[in-house]
Amino acid sequence: MNSSELRKDPFSDGWVIISPDRNFKPSDFKVEEIKPEINSYETKCPFCPGNEGETSVEIRALGRNDTENISEWAIRVVANRFPALKIENKLSFDNLNKVHNRIGGMGAHEVIIESPEHNLEFHTFSNEKRKEILEVFRERIEDLYKDYRFAYVQLFRNFGKDAGASLVHPHSQIIAVPTIPKRGMEEIKASENFWKTYSECIFCAKINNNENFQERVILENDEFIAFVPYAARFAFETWIMPKKHSSEFQNCNPKELKELSEIMGKTQTAIAECLNNPPYNLVLHTSPNLENKYLENIQEYFHWHFEIIPRITSIAGFEWGTGFYINPISPEKSAKMLREFI
Amino acid sequence: MNSSELRKDPFSDGWVIISPDRNFKPSDFKVEEIKPEINSYETKCPFCPGNEGETSVEIRALGRNDTENISEWAIRVVANRFPALKIENKLSFDNLNKVHNRIGGMGAHEVIIESPEHNLEFHTFSNEKRKEILEVFRERIEDLYKDYRFAYVQLFRNFGKDAGASLVHPHSQIIAVPTIPKRGMEEIKASENFWKTYSECIFCAKINNNENFQERVILENDEFIAFVPYAARFAFETWIMPKKHSSEFQNCNPKELKELSEIMGKTQTAIAECLNNPPYNLVLHTSPNLENKYLENIQEYFHWHFEIIPRITSIAGFEWGTGFYINPISPEKSAKMLREFI
Repeated sequence: MNSSELRKDPFSDGWVIISPDRNFKPSDFKVEEIKPEINSYETKCPFCPGNEGETSVEIRALGRNDTENISEWAIRVVANRFPALKIENKLSFDNLNKVHNRIGGMGAHEVIIESPEHNLEFHTFSNEKRKEILEVFRERIEDLYKDYRFAYVQLFRNFGKDAGASLVHPHSQIIAVPTIPKRGMEEIKASENFWKTYSECIFCAKINNNENFQERVILENDEFIAFVPYAARFAFETWIMPKKHSSEFQNCNPKELKELSEIMGKTQTAIAECLNNPPYNLVLHTSPNLENKYLENIQEYFHWHFEIIPRITSIAGFEWGTGFYINPISPEKSAKMLREFI
Repeated sequence: MNSSELRKDPFSDGWVIISPDRNFKPSDFKVEEIKPEINSYETKCPFCPGNEGETSVEIRALGRNDTENISEWAIRVVANRFPALKIENKLSFDNLNKVHNRIGGMGAHEVIIESPEHNLEFHTFSNEKRKEILEVFRERIEDLYKDYRFAYVQLFRNFGKDAGASLVHPHSQIIAVPTIPKRGMEEIKASENFWKTYSECIFCAKINNNENFQERVILENDEFIAFVPYAARFAFETWIMPKKHSSEFQNCNPKELKELSEIMGKTQTAIAECLNNPPYNLVLHTSPNLENKYLENIQEYFHWHFEIIPRITSIAGFEWGTGFYINPISPEKSAKMLREFI
């Protein structure tokens, strides 16, 4: 593929311009190369053991055997010190006037401190350790969904300053919001329409009914597949998805979490090696809280997945103005380059 | 306003979390401060006079009196050397399979080199000069819309590396696309629905029927108003809009362009002074090409405007995952701070 083309995002009215004419090599991207931290402990890091007083309310601590020693832990979940939304705020809907509506800032904002060690990263943890973190993600989402006011829980991970991370110590975040997010709703509506037309999950169709799909696969194991989507908005954008249809990440069993940990480790290591340890965002798309809003048949048509977005290309006026994206590397070429590091 | 709230983007299912608890001052934002260029001419700049051979096909040159001297010009419009889309490509729609669709990469990608001088900026040009540039914007859109294959013309301006600009010499860009962009379509559909319900333009309602609107106004003159929108996605996001209802920027008359030049100069100077000359994106939202797709009554319900997005806060996992935004400064406070620099 040498000339450019527009590919439709199957989940929205968005199009992506695949514009591979410049023949980019990974080294052409001006990337913030993130050097691994040298020390496993930093006195001033609020997430390092011993500094537990610097964080907000502790929600959960794993691996604390001695209840007297608060600095003994393997994974900690704490409330964000500067929460975007607060659990104690009232859930109130206001129609201010014909044009403007608001909701009180009710929600939850948690930080998962993934490890006491300052100098490890999500992809450099052992498979066993990463599985424990994924189990905490699962538990927290399950727990937050017990509160009917939370319509959706967004789990995400920012790595590197250019990806919005303000602290280097390995951590993820969860924000629970009182309404289903725009992007989630786009995926839900599009996959519902597809299911009504074809009696099939659109995500399953992406990986099963598609002769050119193998070109975009990076790696697979028994339970999961890692691939670059057909209309990838960003260079080297990568999705990790269960091969068996499933709408809820929080239903993962231990075997699935084990395989998920393995494929995430290998895939993210390939991205780090291919692109010089770039900044990235990792986001989970799972089913909304069905206690809050019953979406008929969503278990049939929605399919949970992780999206990894390396932040190596810029989002500029064209993207903000149009909601379209320009991707300077074809998804097929991105996948091929990443496969070389598996 | 001290606690956070969610405000609905009136043009989509997007919500913005206004989270002003941290009490930000402009100096708290980690901004790429862009130092003004010292020299008015740079030998190696492809947009400086004398280097006309470094640019692609010239589409238009203003101020060239001596046809022999190609380096004599006041404004030049050239084809982008690395076009995202090409005018010579065929317009072809393909349904690859049930999930995937594509269009051949047909389109246009032009660069407007706004001035021979390397060290001026959009807001430091004289009012008369900026009016000439706006007139070129108007002419190019009018001209591109003569080609029925272009459904929409996106005009944008990237300033600073963090806003996606690869060259410092003052320039804007236009990309003409064969389908109406996602964001444009969201604005069109939402304003059509509003008009059908209330027999009124939603943009006119924003500025006229809204008791708290004055708090968010930065500046106005006879024809235009500059304000921070109610659900601003970004800190200090600013819109400039005609006060009289109009769906097409390209219909501006000389008096309107003169007043537009004045309000853009003052507003962008205030942003530069308040926020330390930050990187920004400027985007125009005007009516699609009605030759391409007839949208009934669009002249009644759509209202053209410029959006200015200072790039001082980061877009991270939460934003990519949800399509929601977190704005750490309330729109009312942003407007108040900008008014102090008018």
